[in-house]
Amino acid sequence: MTATTSLFDPARFEAALEDALTASASLSPRLFAAMRHALLAPGKRLRPQLVFAAGALSQAPVEALTPFAVAVELIHTYSLIHDDLPAMDDDALRRGRPTVHVAFDEATAILAGDALQALAFETLAITPELTLEQRMRLVGLLAHAAGAGGMVGGQALDIEAERFPSTAAPESDALTALEQLHRGKTGALIEAAVIGGALCGPKVKRTLLETLAPLAAQLGLAFQIVDDLLDATSDAATLGKTPGKDARQGKQTFVTLLGERVARERLRTLQRQIDAAIATLGRDAAPLATVARQVIERDR
Amino acid sequence: MTATTSLFDPARFEAALEDALTASASLSPRLFAAMRHALLAPGKRLRPQLVFAAGALSQAPVEALTPFAVAVELIHTYSLIHDDLPAMDDDALRRGRPTVHVAFDEATAILAGDALQALAFETLAITPELTLEQRMRLVGLLAHAAGAGGMVGGQALDIEAERFPSTAAPESDALTALEQLHRGKTGALIEAAVIGGALCGPKVKRTLLETLAPLAAQLGLAFQIVDDLLDATSDAATLGKTPGKDARQGKQTFVTLLGERVARERLRTLQRQIDAAIATLGRDAAPLATVARQVIERDR
Repeated sequence: MTATTSLFDPARFEAALEDALTASASLSPRLFAAMRHALLAPGKRLRPQLVFAAGALSQAPVEALTPFAVAVELIHTYSLIHDDLPAMDDDALRRGRPTVHVAFDEATAILAGDALQALAFETLAITPELTLEQRMRLVGLLAHAAGAGGMVGGQALDIEAERFPSTAAPESDALTALEQLHRGKTGALIEAAVIGGALCGPKVKRTLLETLAPLAAQLGLAFQIVDDLLDATSDAATLGKTPGKDARQGKQTFVTLLGERVARERLRTLQRQIDAAIATLGRDAAPLATVARQVIERDR
Repeated sequence: MTATTSLFDPARFEAALEDALTASASLSPRLFAAMRHALLAPGKRLRPQLVFAAGALSQAPVEALTPFAVAVELIHTYSLIHDDLPAMDDDALRRGRPTVHVAFDEATAILAGDALQALAFETLAITPELTLEQRMRLVGLLAHAAGAGGMVGGQALDIEAERFPSTAAPESDALTALEQLHRGKTGALIEAAVIGGALCGPKVKRTLLETLAPLAAQLGLAFQIVDDLLDATSDAATLGKTPGKDARQGKQTFVTLLGERVARERLRTLQRQIDAAIATLGRDAAPLATVARQVIERDR
């Protein structure tokens, strides 16, 4: 297989998720069922695909990429369960299925998220396919991206912006504040997927990481702008989750702040920057180009 | 300092907790305040003390024990925040302070718990005081203890026993089921504290771990029986949390199942077993003997 083809195999990846889940040895069958309900729902697996695409740039073998991609998807899935809770975004539909607190109950949803987070780090810690040093860097990278300085911190800012609008930034700074919020909420994990994927390779050049870091940040921002556009313009059947939620909750998004036209312009600019960066990476970047296109052109 | 004195220094440990929290670089000041509210409330720090006491048995230096003890306390604190949520035990008082969802709000409480869990693994991953192999074993040990096969799994069983009593075990198996539940809910983290503390040493004998494993399990069980006795017989001012909750929620506990007299007998038996095991460990076990006594004789 040449590096121009992604090593990501959807069926094998689903099996790897299932294996990781089984390894959790849940004491409670109900908790296990809730974790499974969320994790094995039909997801796009964008972040795992990014892990594999970035891994192609450092010649990382599929065996080394899989546990990290699984860990990233475990973190992402736990965050969806918690974000959907009644105390947070209060959503009933996710990945085309009832959310965990609807299909089970709120306590089980909180615990299923908690257990998936722990499982992400356990999966990384015990994998023999990565060196000790790789595992350690990946645990640190993923934990930081998932925590108060990344994903959870961004989600907290999102909730606060909605509930305490009086503390929000003045209009002129609103765009900067929104970018900061999403750099944490969705960007941090996307960036960790890209950087971490590259770190799974046997030898990682510093120049590669220096190209990937801004590229991953641009990709994370593009992802969020697409999300906001879809929320404003799509329907539940296509999305697999409830659309129009941002407007109803009075949330500031790139669409409410910039308008649809300017948001699309911003997206096109990001796309040009991403394409330019990818072009410098040679033919090993073909899988990354494919996933980047998928991030931007997706309809759900 | 001889090994008969514990290396655990309460003031230095509180400072280490504060340092770890600051390192989380929270994007949201409100989230940071909620994490701090829970983490720096006056706690007994029993699990960190166990880490240090077990570490004395493998000549672990204080610099190596601190990051692991911090990680254990971060996990414990996050679990308290989530257990107290309205959807779980719905408690308003913890460590003598309003619980996080009361002092802040429910969304912030969920996120503060989530961020503290991530921070535990980040803290362990980046500490230079432990070898790569030690860090990796500790991440795996702690993640497993915290997850569906340990603490979260036990909490799920606890919630289920309360809400779906019809699915509970028949009377004859009720004690076994209760022990299993608590082996996860409180035992797993106590066991991880003891085993992990020993693993922080430069050279860890297999025979030491073989003695510590059953001892730690007995200590975890003793801890829970004391907890149940205190809930049945103490007051809020002494406990720093709401007493009498188990009875009101119709929970099965060692007291409701065995009666107070038999529960106390069971506790004395465990204490004798623990003392006997500790006696085989020589004078380096003096700190462990002290903490074990504290676990059993505490009044909160």
